[in-house]
Amino acid sequence: MSSFRDDGYAAVDWVASYLDRIREFPVLAQVEPGEIRAALPASPPDEPEPFASVIRDLDAVLLPGLTHSQSPRWLAYFSITGSEPGILAEVLIAGLNQLGILWRTSPALQELEEVTLDWLAQLLGLPSGLHGHIEDTASTSTLVSLAAARAARPGARVVLCSEHAHSSVDKAAKLLELELRRVPVDDAFRLRPELLDLDGACAVVATIGTTSTSSIDPVPAIADRCEEAGAWLHVDAAYAGAAAVCPELRDGFAGWERADSVVVNPHKWLGVPLDCSTLWTRRPDDFRNAFSLVPEYLRVAEEVASTSEYTQVLGRRFRALKLWSVLRCYGRSGLQERIREHVRLAALFEGWVRDEPGWEVVAPRPFSLVCFRRDGSDEENEALLERVNATGEVFLSHTRLDGRYVLRLAVGNFRTTEDDVRLAWDVLRRESSVL
Amino acid sequence: MSSFRDDGYAAVDWVASYLDRIREFPVLAQVEPGEIRAALPASPPDEPEPFASVIRDLDAVLLPGLTHSQSPRWLAYFSITGSEPGILAEVLIAGLNQLGILWRTSPALQELEEVTLDWLAQLLGLPSGLHGHIEDTASTSTLVSLAAARAARPGARVVLCSEHAHSSVDKAAKLLELELRRVPVDDAFRLRPELLDLDGACAVVATIGTTSTSSIDPVPAIADRCEEAGAWLHVDAAYAGAAAVCPELRDGFAGWERADSVVVNPHKWLGVPLDCSTLWTRRPDDFRNAFSLVPEYLRVAEEVASTSEYTQVLGRRFRALKLWSVLRCYGRSGLQERIREHVRLAALFEGWVRDEPGWEVVAPRPFSLVCFRRDGSDEENEALLERVNATGEVFLSHTRLDGRYVLRLAVGNFRTTEDDVRLAWDVLRRESSVL
Repeated sequence: MSSFRDDGYAAVDWVASYLDRIREFPVLAQVEPGEIRAALPASPPDEPEPFASVIRDLDAVLLPGLTHSQSPRWLAYFSITGSEPGILAEVLIAGLNQLGILWRTSPALQELEEVTLDWLAQLLGLPSGLHGHIEDTASTSTLVSLAAARAARPGARVVLCSEHAHSSVDKAAKLLELELRRVPVDDAFRLRPELLDLDGACAVVATIGTTSTSSIDPVPAIADRCEEAGAWLHVDAAYAGAAAVCPELRDGFAGWERADSVVVNPHKWLGVPLDCSTLWTRRPDDFRNAFSLVPEYLRVAEEVASTSEYTQVLGRRFRALKLWSVLRCYGRSGLQERIREHVRLAALFEGWVRDEPGWEVVAPRPFSLVCFRRDGSDEENEALLERVNATGEVFLSHTRLDGRYVLRLAVGNFRTTEDDVRLAWDVLRRESSVL
Repeated sequence: MSSFRDDGYAAVDWVASYLDRIREFPVLAQVEPGEIRAALPASPPDEPEPFASVIRDLDAVLLPGLTHSQSPRWLAYFSITGSEPGILAEVLIAGLNQLGILWRTSPALQELEEVTLDWLAQLLGLPSGLHGHIEDTASTSTLVSLAAARAARPGARVVLCSEHAHSSVDKAAKLLELELRRVPVDDAFRLRPELLDLDGACAVVATIGTTSTSSIDPVPAIADRCEEAGAWLHVDAAYAGAAAVCPELRDGFAGWERADSVVVNPHKWLGVPLDCSTLWTRRPDDFRNAFSLVPEYLRVAEEVASTSEYTQVLGRRFRALKLWSVLRCYGRSGLQERIREHVRLAALFEGWVRDEPGWEVVAPRPFSLVCFRRDGSDEENEALLERVNATGEVFLSHTRLDGRYVLRLAVGNFRTTEDDVRLAWDVLRRESSVL
């Protein structure tokens, strides 16, 4: 194993050096389509190569094709972080290579997953006693939740969500052959519950922290309507859910304790490397009915149900280990500190925009995402964003609100500082002045 | 980053030491349900802990709850390996934390995935020009393939497979609300193509290397029938596909080049740590029609389609990097060597069983899985397996064939030697003698 140790130290050193140099790289890859592909051999090697050659080509060939999500200056979409304890846990996960099929193929995998999901539910103020498990992404969490909802209400084939719900709801509805109806939003981009027509509906997806603006659907009112109608309430808090670790931010989460299923992505704003999406439900039997191949009448009380009976996939990685590592190495206080700092930085940026003539904040900012634009046409704002991203100094993204092109700055990387957000603002103003 | 380096070296050292000691652990965890859970704190810490405490508790708390897939004496289900270059690639994957949503969020992720899937297709002798991408597991690969098949043939709601096809086909059919019909097999556990009734069928799933016995469905005859009927042919070679790296084992793969979709799991028999399932199709447009939210008429020729348009999930990990690392660090010859050795060891074990009075081989052995039993009742064979696994010395599993309880020994871990297989045989004979 001596070469494994040496190669392993080299891999750790590479990552350490990469993270030390992270601000030196253009955040958005500056390559053309096909450029990386063309730089790679067309065929695999016949003979073994040393691991050092993989690292060498990572630098020589792949690096220009990376867009750096680890950069503190990635402020696009939602920022993510592969934190140090999360990265190191992946070493252990791969080294152990636990295979979660049945409880017996890894009791530690299944039981640590149960415990870490309990821990995270406590940190977020979710009710006790929920059944939780880990999926790869929110796309899957929402898919399996809606599959459980479909099975729980045979014949009801409609799903409702706001105009601002994530596209993963469309994808889930398409796969499940459910009819998706999008409900209009109010002037703060929140679903209007009085417009919900729950006739024939099996589920409503409410979002806490929409992708475009981080708006918060009125979950208590939606929960009332779902309860009356017997429809499933799925809460998508993939991005914003992390903010519930801070008691002062919990107002936005009112009502989510009434959801039938809730998804939060620790790989978004909680420092866990991709992929790790956590899903809780108070209706585990409905998940089991939707997914288990063991008929109810064959189930025995003493058996240990494996997690695969509650979801689509059979063989599962030991993802709980990285969540466990991150929750322990940051602790409640460490996570709160980071979330608070990100919200502070977003508020600071929002203030700069608000105070600057010729710029406008265009949506409420409940968390760490600021939606704004420069006075002028959509084309001018689009050109501005392209210029900003082409500098490589920072990376922002956009959305459309009420038909207008809008810029988005989302704080969420654990390494982002006030200087990074200040740089983004300087670059935006500089590039807008030359348009 | 100094503590990251130190912690990283410690993580690498832990894994190196773990793999050095791997034969010392009972292969199957010897804990009772709930035992690991009870040993963990009920609540997360308020304050940060050092990463060293995570490693400490891995030893002190989790270790007894692990079933060791990395053990060369795991001979149950199918053996898997997290090889050294695969483990080390996970360090890089987590450190880079690339987010595959769109091509631009990581051109390197998308293009390396294309290239490594081409490489692997070449190694396996698949046709050139297939569209390939990586999924988490074969459950997902089969699900998305059948979703594409369903979309390609509206109104046809039947899927056919043999009695021995994997349960993931049942799960996919359930989620997609397709009717699954299982077709009887011949005396070598192969689907009988003359019994295929393709009326109303959108797809047939043929398996090369079934889970119970590694039997090989007659793909050429099934492909003929699918072509006549216009049904989709999905080939599940999740386990056995790896064997196609050896030209002398390619006979078993006749006809798979005619499949509409093919799945092979490099995380099974090709040394890639979980999870990594590779899926190829010659009908990418059907996948795109099933999954893309961009209507056909809005697609423009110059755009770079992101992989998420061909599947269910949006945000994807940089899994290609571990496949790339493994393919390079073993090379064609290294992979062939391991597959050949595993097939040799399985043949050796098969010979021992055949030559021993009171034992019987009960299925053909095309690859590295031996199905066998001790003369006697099902109960006696079940008791034997329980005794063998309770020793912790080796770990085997079972199946049922023609109503009889059958033992399975599957070679596939890169570290398994002739001594390990010999040990399994010794333990089996020893434990059977005292029953």
